[in-house]
Amino acid sequence: MIRIIVKQFVKPDLIDRYIEIMKEMVAKTRELDEGCIEYGLFQDSKDPQIITLIEGWESQHALDKHMDSTHFKEIIPPLSTFFEKPEEVNIYRPVGEKRK
Amino acid sequence: MIRIIVKQFVKPDLIDRYIEIMKEMVAKTRELDEGCIEYGLFQDSKDPQIITLIEGWESQHALDKHMDSTHFKEIIPPLSTFFEKPEEVNIYRPVGEKRK
Repeated sequence: MIRIIVKQFVKPDLIDRYIEIMKEMVAKTRELDEGCIEYGLFQDSKDPQIITLIEGWESQHALDKHMDSTHFKEIIPPLSTFFEKPEEVNIYRPVGEKRK
Repeated sequence: MIRIIVKQFVKPDLIDRYIEIMKEMVAKTRELDEGCIEYGLFQDSKDPQIITLIEGWESQHALDKHMDSTHFKEIIPPLSTFFEKPEEVNIYRPVGEKRK
């Protein structure tokens, strides 16, 4: 299993638009991408500019296919202009699990 | 629902000991704490010093009870000496969900 935490810092005036776009991305990912354990959008309870994707994938193969999907390639790249500073991406493995 | 991401930066020589201690914390939390949706320990695939707790709680009440538990009070506070720099804690709500 792979978990990914994508912590994004969205410009204040673009938060609503960003959420609107990402709701479509979440829906398509959950519907179309095999091996997707979790793909959810969460907003920090103190700082609404911090919006984080919590992802879970069964394998590297499932993640690679997601990142090669049409919805990923169409929706994600343009979003970088929405961010106040670069996103923080951490790719995790359960403690003690070997790579699969 | 509440999601919490606790990103910790563990001193290199204490990683194994830290993981050993936290495995007990994870087991007790999953077993004893009602309303626990997820409580898992994950290690960054590039930087083994970054070890992150991904948590999910049904409500603020469930989270409060967890932080008031014996295992939390006994295990968590001493761990701060294991860290190279302060942990990053983000408390999240699903986008669009009102507080419960």
